[in-house]
Amino acid sequence: MSNYPLLDTINSPEDLRRLPEDELPEVAEELRGFMVESVSKTGGHLSSSLGATELAVAIHYVFDTPRDRIIWDVGHQAYAHKILTGRREQMATLRRHHGLSGFPKRNESEYDAFGTAHSSTSISAALGMAVADKLKGDDRWHVAVIGDGALTGGMAIEALNDAGVYKKDVRLLIILNDNDCSISPAVGALSGHLAKIVSTRAFNGARELSKKVLKPVPGLWEVAKRMEKQAINFVSPPSGIFSSFDINYYGPVDGHNLEELVDILRNLKAHDCPIVLHVTTKKGKGYAPAEADPTTYHGVSPFDPAVGIVPSGKPSKPTFTQVFGRWICDTAARDERLYGITPAMREGSGLVEFEKKFPDRYRDVAIAEQHAVTYAAGLACEGMKPVVAIYSTFLQRAIDQVIHDVALQNLPVVFAVDRAGLVGADGATHHGAFDVALLRPIPNMTIMTPSDENECRLLLNTAFAMDTPTVVRYPRGKGTGVEVTADAETVEVGKARVLRRGKGRVAFVGFGPMTHMLAEVAEHLDGTLLDMRFVKPLDREALLEAAEEHDLVVVAEDSALEGGAGSAVLEVLVEAGVTVPVMRFGLPDRFIEQGTQAELHEELGLTAAAVEEKVKARLATMKKSPFGGLFGR
Amino acid sequence: MSNYPLLDTINSPEDLRRLPEDELPEVAEELRGFMVESVSKTGGHLSSSLGATELAVAIHYVFDTPRDRIIWDVGHQAYAHKILTGRREQMATLRRHHGLSGFPKRNESEYDAFGTAHSSTSISAALGMAVADKLKGDDRWHVAVIGDGALTGGMAIEALNDAGVYKKDVRLLIILNDNDCSISPAVGALSGHLAKIVSTRAFNGARELSKKVLKPVPGLWEVAKRMEKQAINFVSPPSGIFSSFDINYYGPVDGHNLEELVDILRNLKAHDCPIVLHVTTKKGKGYAPAEADPTTYHGVSPFDPAVGIVPSGKPSKPTFTQVFGRWICDTAARDERLYGITPAMREGSGLVEFEKKFPDRYRDVAIAEQHAVTYAAGLACEGMKPVVAIYSTFLQRAIDQVIHDVALQNLPVVFAVDRAGLVGADGATHHGAFDVALLRPIPNMTIMTPSDENECRLLLNTAFAMDTPTVVRYPRGKGTGVEVTADAETVEVGKARVLRRGKGRVAFVGFGPMTHMLAEVAEHLDGTLLDMRFVKPLDREALLEAAEEHDLVVVAEDSALEGGAGSAVLEVLVEAGVTVPVMRFGLPDRFIEQGTQAELHEELGLTAAAVEEKVKARLATMKKSPFGGLFGR
Repeated sequence: MSNYPLLDTINSPEDLRRLPEDELPEVAEELRGFMVESVSKTGGHLSSSLGATELAVAIHYVFDTPRDRIIWDVGHQAYAHKILTGRREQMATLRRHHGLSGFPKRNESEYDAFGTAHSSTSISAALGMAVADKLKGDDRWHVAVIGDGALTGGMAIEALNDAGVYKKDVRLLIILNDNDCSISPAVGALSGHLAKIVSTRAFNGARELSKKVLKPVPGLWEVAKRMEKQAINFVSPPSGIFSSFDINYYGPVDGHNLEELVDILRNLKAHDCPIVLHVTTKKGKGYAPAEADPTTYHGVSPFDPAVGIVPSGKPSKPTFTQVFGRWICDTAARDERLYGITPAMREGSGLVEFEKKFPDRYRDVAIAEQHAVTYAAGLACEGMKPVVAIYSTFLQRAIDQVIHDVALQNLPVVFAVDRAGLVGADGATHHGAFDVALLRPIPNMTIMTPSDENECRLLLNTAFAMDTPTVVRYPRGKGTGVEVTADAETVEVGKARVLRRGKGRVAFVGFGPMTHMLAEVAEHLDGTLLDMRFVKPLDREALLEAAEEHDLVVVAEDSALEGGAGSAVLEVLVEAGVTVPVMRFGLPDRFIEQGTQAELHEELGLTAAAVEEKVKARLATMKKSPFGGLFGR
Repeated sequence: MSNYPLLDTINSPEDLRRLPEDELPEVAEELRGFMVESVSKTGGHLSSSLGATELAVAIHYVFDTPRDRIIWDVGHQAYAHKILTGRREQMATLRRHHGLSGFPKRNESEYDAFGTAHSSTSISAALGMAVADKLKGDDRWHVAVIGDGALTGGMAIEALNDAGVYKKDVRLLIILNDNDCSISPAVGALSGHLAKIVSTRAFNGARELSKKVLKPVPGLWEVAKRMEKQAINFVSPPSGIFSSFDINYYGPVDGHNLEELVDILRNLKAHDCPIVLHVTTKKGKGYAPAEADPTTYHGVSPFDPAVGIVPSGKPSKPTFTQVFGRWICDTAARDERLYGITPAMREGSGLVEFEKKFPDRYRDVAIAEQHAVTYAAGLACEGMKPVVAIYSTFLQRAIDQVIHDVALQNLPVVFAVDRAGLVGADGATHHGAFDVALLRPIPNMTIMTPSDENECRLLLNTAFAMDTPTVVRYPRGKGTGVEVTADAETVEVGKARVLRRGKGRVAFVGFGPMTHMLAEVAEHLDGTLLDMRFVKPLDREALLEAAEEHDLVVVAEDSALEGGAGSAVLEVLVEAGVTVPVMRFGLPDRFIEQGTQAELHEELGLTAAAVEEKVKARLATMKKSPFGGLFGR
């Protein structure tokens, strides 16, 4: 017999809504069991989804999904939602190549009203939908579920400011899922503010209060409505942030109490304007190891659910992230100007050790990429040397600040850009595909692409030694596994290194780890191989020499081809009047889905075998010019 | 005798600080007179600087500038600051080529602690400076002056959330300059919240209160300090937004009362943690026409101060902005799905008429570019066709939202990107230099560059007719002055138009208004001339044909060359194996300062004469290949 007798009967929220209310806790129980079992096999975001289980059940039970819209901010808390909306079986393919996405995705299900992954977008999107609904004279509900961590992202507050103006016909319910956590524990003053609200109104008191006011006893609710805001708002603490935006606030309520959740959601539907429901939940709820350590269980690899996650034993070769973590500690020890900043990515960016050793020079600014960058600019103005550790995909949030506050003033900020290139299971929303193209047009900027772990250390040293804005971009995971020095050696800015000089027809030009993919091809074809190190400034001399001595230039990068590093190579060659044929390999002009890095490289033809085949085919079509000049039509 | 006897004696804040306090109102008076006189000759941002006159006087009087740091958010309110800090004479060159910048600028004066222009950066930067100061064990003050409009920008709130955590040794004074205005009247719920604070505490009452508490009577202040927050904070309304971030709040105080300002600033220096002083001011204060209509006097061209700004009589040819304004009204009339969005740029974006005609489908979301874009995405999900009207330089604030919320979901949002290319007097912070390079790597995106006003209309029609994300970028001011149709005609997506077929050696490839600069050269050299219309997708066929038939391809664009439209041309040619020499003209890899568009084009060699000279020089070095193939070393 199945372990999930109730879940087995739920193939859509309609099935859920047919259940009597008192069976919902059992549904939540089964959901948790299923999630732990399933995610322990596939890996995935466990803690957040465990914490939001009752929320998912209650929302789908009370609201008429998919007609009513749910937007899960960030979206890694939405596994229960996926399971309840017909994707139970597919959970076995979670985050796999061609499998179920780890995030809500519009083209995966009609229940995924808005694709999410980057933080703090849900209120904006839900407000847009709600206003569209108003214009069409419809009366759907639009539910944004947003964590207290995501609320620190500025755009969420921009949206609150806009939403607070609407007083009718805009059905927007913002559920603040307050677990006092982003991925790491929540930081910033707002987090203390929310905690104060929760502690001020003793839980049971608030619950009784909301029951008394809101229990749908015929008539009573009508009275409350007639008394308007004064009456129904008295659950609200007087100084909440939401009152600053003139938005009705309810709560806090216990987000694991289904009876209460269902009650209050039903009653809130009597509104027709933006409202906030403050719900407190526990990350990892219901699975003891995750409750005890929600950060470790935030994003997990497969594990044995009976045992929990076992720390890996002997350390293997370090990842690029670990190389960065070691570098920042070493450098901070020898230079007291170093100041490390992360927008809520302490663990992912390798800063745990740094925070311990240099707490005064470490700052987690919360999910606030824009602030992180301009805060760094301010530090740099006063003689500090800030290092902003940030994922490539999240740096997209702060491009203007990089341009306007850092580069224009030519300030020495080091951007340590992790997760550059393809990231794997997180998919299209998280690939670091665009940073090279986005940063390359910015004047004063130096952009470096280490090809292996030791190069990463050397280029970080080099960046830190400069007095201008710098970017060092490195991928998720490991490189070649080369030994990493522990010293502060730097390299010459704007100079490539020649890894191989060959007599064949092809010059290979590598950026970042793709250099090592090219190495194999260069070996087979006896080509020259350059590790460019710098996208900007580009080593013009080395490029022109390579172009001069070979019939074909082959460039490879793990970033978008449009405007990418290969494009910079073309600019230099054409500027110099060199009309040599060039082949560029990199990320194509489409969003790339999830899969392991290896699977995706295979799919995109970014393997040595695929490149070699294409290069040979091209060579076969080319004839030598009688003048030594080359053309390859 | 000079009209400004006191000002004449003030060549630095030190001179100001030597004056007795009771002469300060006279200084403010003279500053206003000087500003109106000076700006009426040069043009500039008048209303905001008039409103912040007493603030500038009081801050420099009380704080030890430049040792203490002032950061003027946005910075267009800083003229009094410029005049008081040794730049009185240079005000005659304001916003001129090689003249004084309209914004604070680090390399212009040691008193400009941080360059500003884009909104909402000041708290982040000042916090960074204050924390650097703490680490160095110094005790400077860091004053961020931020308008209520700029406070709606999300990054300002991100910074508040971070700042609120510090409780000592971080000397950050945030002066909220509340004039109930951004450039247009302020919008959003926060504005109402601030107004409520101001009206709740009747002005005089609050003033008396703060005097009573804070007047530096020896002993009294000490008592207040000992009573800590409870005591000194009682001026603060209980529900202010700043309490959500646990930041001490004082005010509101009258920002035109110098005695009161000087008093309270002196007393606030007893703190050593982040504090907010809420000051109310009147935009345009002291110059009657500007007080009556601060929006018209926000940014002015030269005018007669005795008469004020006279509306221009008979309308001349429309600007690109006006073409857009007309287009959006016409299109909204025939398609009720159209929804127009501006992040606080109603006038500048040409939406005044649209708001009047279609108030339900118009939204000023406040200074909130990120929210604007994702809000549009939400609307598009529900079948609306949103048009986001935004300046190129401000779109930099929302690149991630364009990628993650619009393009990834392939939603039909039209970005009407105004002020693309060089903008003129606003200078380096405002040029629309980067949009092409930033947008080009984004999959699913169509990017259009109308070459004249009628093309602008046609391409807006085309964008609106598409079901995918589109960008139409157009410059500040006027184009060729061509007649603009009033219909809904579209053009074929991804197709260039051939403006001239020539028998000469050169094919000219134009993007946007640069096409018309090339026309003259093409005429002289009997070249072929393409108006590409689309940067993405690029008309491959037209390009290859042009390359085939000519010895040299010359590309011109009014955007950054690194990764720009010319770079896209190289990508297409190289991909096709065509090794034709190419010359690219556009914006070089450095920040470009202020000047008229004509002056800057001259400086950058973006004139027909300069291009023709370079093209002829290049042709002289090239020989024809005997095979018809071309090479140009």
